[in-house]
Amino acid sequence: MSAPTVSAPETAATPEAAGPDVIREGAFGNARALVCRECGSEVALGPQYACMECFGPLEVAYDFPTDLTREQIESGPANIWRYKALLPVPTDIETSPNTEPGFTRLLKADNLAAELGLSNLWVKDDSTNPTNSFKDRVVACALSAAREFHSKVFACPSTGNLANAVAAAGARAGMKTVVFIPSNLEHPKQVNSAVYTESLVAVDGNYDDVNRLASEIAGEEDGWAFVNVNVRPFYAEGSKTLGYEIAEQLGWRLPDQVVIPVASGSQLTKVDKAFQELIALGLVEDKPYKVFGAQATGCSPVSVAYKSGTDVVRPVKPDTIAKSLAIGNPADAPYVLDVCRRTGGAVEDVTDDEIRAGILLLARNEGIFTETAGGTTTAVLKKLVETGQLDTSLDTVIINTGMGLKTLDAISGQVGPAATIDPSYAAFAATGIA
Amino acid sequence: MSAPTVSAPETAATPEAAGPDVIREGAFGNARALVCRECGSEVALGPQYACMECFGPLEVAYDFPTDLTREQIESGPANIWRYKALLPVPTDIETSPNTEPGFTRLLKADNLAAELGLSNLWVKDDSTNPTNSFKDRVVACALSAAREFHSKVFACPSTGNLANAVAAAGARAGMKTVVFIPSNLEHPKQVNSAVYTESLVAVDGNYDDVNRLASEIAGEEDGWAFVNVNVRPFYAEGSKTLGYEIAEQLGWRLPDQVVIPVASGSQLTKVDKAFQELIALGLVEDKPYKVFGAQATGCSPVSVAYKSGTDVVRPVKPDTIAKSLAIGNPADAPYVLDVCRRTGGAVEDVTDDEIRAGILLLARNEGIFTETAGGTTTAVLKKLVETGQLDTSLDTVIINTGMGLKTLDAISGQVGPAATIDPSYAAFAATGIA
Repeated sequence: MSAPTVSAPETAATPEAAGPDVIREGAFGNARALVCRECGSEVALGPQYACMECFGPLEVAYDFPTDLTREQIESGPANIWRYKALLPVPTDIETSPNTEPGFTRLLKADNLAAELGLSNLWVKDDSTNPTNSFKDRVVACALSAAREFHSKVFACPSTGNLANAVAAAGARAGMKTVVFIPSNLEHPKQVNSAVYTESLVAVDGNYDDVNRLASEIAGEEDGWAFVNVNVRPFYAEGSKTLGYEIAEQLGWRLPDQVVIPVASGSQLTKVDKAFQELIALGLVEDKPYKVFGAQATGCSPVSVAYKSGTDVVRPVKPDTIAKSLAIGNPADAPYVLDVCRRTGGAVEDVTDDEIRAGILLLARNEGIFTETAGGTTTAVLKKLVETGQLDTSLDTVIINTGMGLKTLDAISGQVGPAATIDPSYAAFAATGIA
Repeated sequence: MSAPTVSAPETAATPEAAGPDVIREGAFGNARALVCRECGSEVALGPQYACMECFGPLEVAYDFPTDLTREQIESGPANIWRYKALLPVPTDIETSPNTEPGFTRLLKADNLAAELGLSNLWVKDDSTNPTNSFKDRVVACALSAAREFHSKVFACPSTGNLANAVAAAGARAGMKTVVFIPSNLEHPKQVNSAVYTESLVAVDGNYDDVNRLASEIAGEEDGWAFVNVNVRPFYAEGSKTLGYEIAEQLGWRLPDQVVIPVASGSQLTKVDKAFQELIALGLVEDKPYKVFGAQATGCSPVSVAYKSGTDVVRPVKPDTIAKSLAIGNPADAPYVLDVCRRTGGAVEDVTDDEIRAGILLLARNEGIFTETAGGTTTAVLKKLVETGQLDTSLDTVIINTGMGLKTLDAISGQVGPAATIDPSYAAFAATGIA
């Protein structure tokens, strides 16, 4: 996909009217350029993800308005577009069909706090997003970029949550979607994406094979927007909205401690970026906060590096029930280590048994049914308390990134009826449940 | 459960402090009494559901403030409690742990509208509620009532969505929950409730047997709040919030036409009640609107009665994939017929094949994966257009009450990969998908 040129201000007001290869004025809001996280080189906003100078990852940089107020944000819609001034999207983003994700619940979790011995705990619950994971946030930003780049196809390689989010968002936007999955994926997970798209492609191979194929297609075909490949810089910015929402929903203040699951590591770094932006813009008071990363022991390259006190992250072959966290070679691992060390946090990992127990801990105490990733985060919270790495007197937030119906198998052997009875009061009374 | 007495204004400010059998002042907000829908008799607010005079169903009546403004509502939280002044809940309801349901997306559905030939269509999407169905709304109101009545146990008979919502809300509120299900319920559905509660009780019998047992226990045991039995009048009011939200999200105006699924029929009558209240309070302009009911042909007692032009609803034995609509003897059927006839709407029904097609129609056009109930509503919308019963030039809203992962079996045979390929670009190019 070649980089389109940016149009002059007087050109058309919609991406369609701008014509192919012309990016309309304001297509990316207050975003200024793509900047390399390694060498700092800047390039124009376009469908690129790697620095031409040093091959480092590109990230969106902004010229933010200095007069943005809390009231302006609060008067926006109850979804991520209330923060559109801080995202690489046009000012009319609400008028383009999208899934309208975000502004999910921040629940005060007093029962779980009491169980673990914490003073104040909140759960940011992203399981109630349109396709039930935080992926709807990032995909909505990728969709906007694909639209502004006049992409013909909206696509991704995935094994689960991302496939659902891409297929749903593309359907709603009226864009052709093609979603690539490993052919041995369980049938229910295939159905959960195939319901939205006619072009689900099963690939004989593992996720790495699927991913490689996606990169190959992105190189060969014109006009394909792979959300997590060639429009990744725009996509990744969507995770910042988790940070904005946590701060706004706490009453425009930062938490003292936040625990975030780590797959590629992008989400954790973007929540930190969001907090820094809110401080810089004067929307929250500057104060210290600690960022903690959560991994499954069966795929814990970042946790291992953190504990070894090294910057070198050794790739692993994942072996855990937390499939949505099973990235053996996380792209943002070095940046995760930076954030956790800079803020005084940590990275910790838990076993599959602890993950299963974490799912039940959250469900039984707070009525939130999370997937294995959320079980990981909850279990890591518990472990951080037990090992004294987390200060129980400080205000703490954990992020639940997805919902339990998608990983039902993980706990289906653990729970069930307390009793099976005849339909009579006598039979019920005999159970002792009353 | 005997009716507690209402306390004098000077008594305690929380239900706990008020002590057993004393209802605190303001426990039910602006609610005045329970009134019989048949004979109009009024009784004091209490855990009752049938009129002592004529056995008719009791409904909550209010003394609403006349000065409630749109701005007051808009400044409330992004959940159903923004409408607390219109619900039987205390003014401090946000401070009691609850699942914080509601204020779900109202999506403009231009793709589906174009497909069906409608000018303007919206989908009110309740699949993004905390446990992924509209039941979280009604259960949140039942929970408040149970709390104010000092109930010890929060319970329900259910086969699905209601069980999830009750078990989750009870866990979060720190109340003991007991959920009764038929023992032949599929294991995944059992897990989806058992994850939240230690007291899932499987009953050897069908749903009617489970329901009868619940009524028996409600009579025998003190302090049990069965959400859909003895606190039903309070529970049912929660559905009004769907109507309030539709009007607010349309910019404080009523739609011209609304299509609502019919199980017990309660939701449809409560949306109409909400519209009437908004008109009476001057929060929306008074204008005509038509209410349409949607049933599955395999359980269509209300549709059959509507088409026969009679008030007599004959109970049926349900046989449909739309299990959450499969109530053969709907309690609110006469009131559904009243509303649909009074407003110039209709009740229509569709086959299981049409329901499956309806699920795909909504997913492929708008990126919303609905359960069989939403497939029914979408398919009925299509049929109402095709039969000329719905005016395609008018503004129309359909309600999606739940999410597709809960009824995956209904369509798992219908969708899947378009192709299965080797992990190479050549193999992909050969599919012709690009």
